[in-house]
Amino acid sequence: MSTIAAISTPSGIGGIAVIRLSGPEAFAIASHHLSLPRPTVRPATAFAHFRRDGELVDEVVVTVFPTPHSYTGDDTVEISCHGSSYVQQAILQALIDSGARLAEPGEFTRRAFLNGKLNLSQAEAVADLIDSTNAASHQLALSQLRGGYADLLDQMRQQLVDLTALLELELDFSEEDVEFADRKQLHHLVDSLRQEVARLIGSFQLGNAIKNGVPVAIVGRPNVGKSSLLNALLADDRAIVSPIPGTTRDTIEETFTIDGLTFRFIDTAGLRDSDDPVESIGFDRAIKAIRKATVILFVRDATVPFTEYAIDDIAYLLDDIPQKEKIIFIVHNKADLAPPPYPPGNAVSAKTGTGVDQLKQDILKAVRRRIPNSDGVMLTNLRHYEALRQVAASLDEVLQGLDNRLPADLVAIDLRNALHHLGTITGQVTTDEVLGTIFSRFCVGK
Amino acid sequence: MSTIAAISTPSGIGGIAVIRLSGPEAFAIASHHLSLPRPTVRPATAFAHFRRDGELVDEVVVTVFPTPHSYTGDDTVEISCHGSSYVQQAILQALIDSGARLAEPGEFTRRAFLNGKLNLSQAEAVADLIDSTNAASHQLALSQLRGGYADLLDQMRQQLVDLTALLELELDFSEEDVEFADRKQLHHLVDSLRQEVARLIGSFQLGNAIKNGVPVAIVGRPNVGKSSLLNALLADDRAIVSPIPGTTRDTIEETFTIDGLTFRFIDTAGLRDSDDPVESIGFDRAIKAIRKATVILFVRDATVPFTEYAIDDIAYLLDDIPQKEKIIFIVHNKADLAPPPYPPGNAVSAKTGTGVDQLKQDILKAVRRRIPNSDGVMLTNLRHYEALRQVAASLDEVLQGLDNRLPADLVAIDLRNALHHLGTITGQVTTDEVLGTIFSRFCVGK
Repeated sequence: MSTIAAISTPSGIGGIAVIRLSGPEAFAIASHHLSLPRPTVRPATAFAHFRRDGELVDEVVVTVFPTPHSYTGDDTVEISCHGSSYVQQAILQALIDSGARLAEPGEFTRRAFLNGKLNLSQAEAVADLIDSTNAASHQLALSQLRGGYADLLDQMRQQLVDLTALLELELDFSEEDVEFADRKQLHHLVDSLRQEVARLIGSFQLGNAIKNGVPVAIVGRPNVGKSSLLNALLADDRAIVSPIPGTTRDTIEETFTIDGLTFRFIDTAGLRDSDDPVESIGFDRAIKAIRKATVILFVRDATVPFTEYAIDDIAYLLDDIPQKEKIIFIVHNKADLAPPPYPPGNAVSAKTGTGVDQLKQDILKAVRRRIPNSDGVMLTNLRHYEALRQVAASLDEVLQGLDNRLPADLVAIDLRNALHHLGTITGQVTTDEVLGTIFSRFCVGK
Repeated sequence: MSTIAAISTPSGIGGIAVIRLSGPEAFAIASHHLSLPRPTVRPATAFAHFRRDGELVDEVVVTVFPTPHSYTGDDTVEISCHGSSYVQQAILQALIDSGARLAEPGEFTRRAFLNGKLNLSQAEAVADLIDSTNAASHQLALSQLRGGYADLLDQMRQQLVDLTALLELELDFSEEDVEFADRKQLHHLVDSLRQEVARLIGSFQLGNAIKNGVPVAIVGRPNVGKSSLLNALLADDRAIVSPIPGTTRDTIEETFTIDGLTFRFIDTAGLRDSDDPVESIGFDRAIKAIRKATVILFVRDATVPFTEYAIDDIAYLLDDIPQKEKIIFIVHNKADLAPPPYPPGNAVSAKTGTGVDQLKQDILKAVRRRIPNSDGVMLTNLRHYEALRQVAASLDEVLQGLDNRLPADLVAIDLRNALHHLGTITGQVTTDEVLGTIFSRFCVGK
């Protein structure tokens, strides 16, 4: 195994930078250039002079992490130097000249995985943690890193293993036509597993939304004040307001963060100018926005009577959209111009600001209600989502096989399939290709 | 004294980031959030959980540096966390909530200075070191950081102190009209000091050039191939080629680095179209470029006879420029089209590349010859340059006073002046204003 090196701190110039060196030769390579702190079983730190060909390069702080007490699990040296780009490069080059290899993106974490310091979903959580920009996505990544999610998957995996073992035991006695596993009980166990998997899959939309920003569609007829409402929501907010590229990378959306949760607004054109919603060109866009959205703000003009038109609009829009996945708010805008009482929903005035804060808090509360508490597990990773869909499909096959009284060996194959797909998430089953894809997401130096 | 905190690594997202906390309450504040390694007299490192209000923020590596074994000299804690912008901010915020104050730019180094860990010129060298982008500027900063320069200044200071003491001793006996100091010997001592100061002042142009890139002016008549030569010099070079803002901030210049030394090319328009160089509009620009340049490449067309015209050009250009400060090359371009022998100088072909590499090596060698060896001291800092000019002026007054046999007390005043200006460099004499200016150059976190 080679010894790898990289600059682990963000690129650029700063007060200090950290160069990380890990692998069997880490101590030997580093000691060509500086005196290491006396080896101990624990991490140790010392001031040192980093030299290259006898010439002083920098005055540094060096920390040695002896195996297995390091991030990767291998002997590791971290060199904290002055944050000049020249010094960083010179130290890295010197380590490479002495036998280290430049680390690939995520290679330190890959080694931590290969050394059993992290499972694969934890390794992915490291990348998520580094990418996290708000409190909610940070908490999701941290909880995944801490392994709560992996524990759940391990439990599921253990159940599948037990079930498969039971079925395969029957195969050994296949000529005797015995059934060790009570088919009805088996069905029940697989079914409850299937439901747990479905719950996880179901958490993906919101989990992903929290990671990338909760999409909020603002829809409604022209001139009801959609843009004013958006501005009021953004302006009133003292938190981060910035245009960030949407996850689909094809649109720039406004985002803001309330209380650690980031929302992404999907602006829609006016719903329609024609009276017939089906004819409207805006309709398709609104439908698309609604499909992507977790939260829908249906904005209407409070000064216009709440007739069947408005109800029709909503009905049309939501016709074929699974409503229970959406959080819908009816927003009566221009409330400053219309006297109460208002129909059910949020009465606001984008112009005066009345009710805008309340609306924000209501949105936040509604989304929060759907986030499991810190023990709960949410799916945020597309790779895991796809693997779990495969698990679900395999379990469906198992259930069908049991219903149709298929032979144990055929049912066992489907159970093995489910096991396989589950194993890809935490890395019990993996290929170099999968690892390559996962770790290429990482920055160099992690 | 307050306890200060800052993110010390470059801003942005990376594998890891380091947050630094320093001051009397550093250990107390940090231990609100994580368990510190057992206190020792030496730096100590441990893995830890950073918590905020009981909630886990990140899994970190924490290093404690007990006073005086830290960069600042005060108790210091460095927290190495995941390099997410969210995590960095959350940890910094937590430390501030617990009583730390956000550090100002350079405040850690300022404290190192105030605690006597560094003198002022060493503190300035830290900023230079962080800004250094090539081997030569890095070496200059490092040598200044290591104190060779300060040692020289200290010697000079000591000599001045001794001389002043001797003169001031006479004042105590002024009624007796004795001279403890032999005026002739005194003159000799001051004069040799004055020469040492002059040598330092003289090293500033090149020292500054090395720090910011050695300016090379390419001058010559139109169509002799100045731009082609520049391209050949740049293209042939596999090192960094990038447009960087010039130090005067009013022009973008091409730079390249040969063997650790950065050169900045100052392009000039064709020298003149008219036969009369004085009438040419390009002339003024060429003169300006030449004044700024350390190296002058005077380019001519080798296919045109080397007549008096060319010699006139050079003579005109260099008329009132102190030539011994400049390194001048006569470059005979288009040598592929003209048969040898060539007049003295470098025969090159920008088109075929012949002689370009040799020219580069010759430039490098000529500049190198002027750089003192690693023990030698070069002046790179404008503040020091200006202080030394004040020292020189004061010493001139001293010499004049001695020549004119002025009374000892008047001569002593000038010596005190010289001492004062010398003291501003290393910080024996300083004001909050000077410190403010110096440390505002720094990045936050250093």
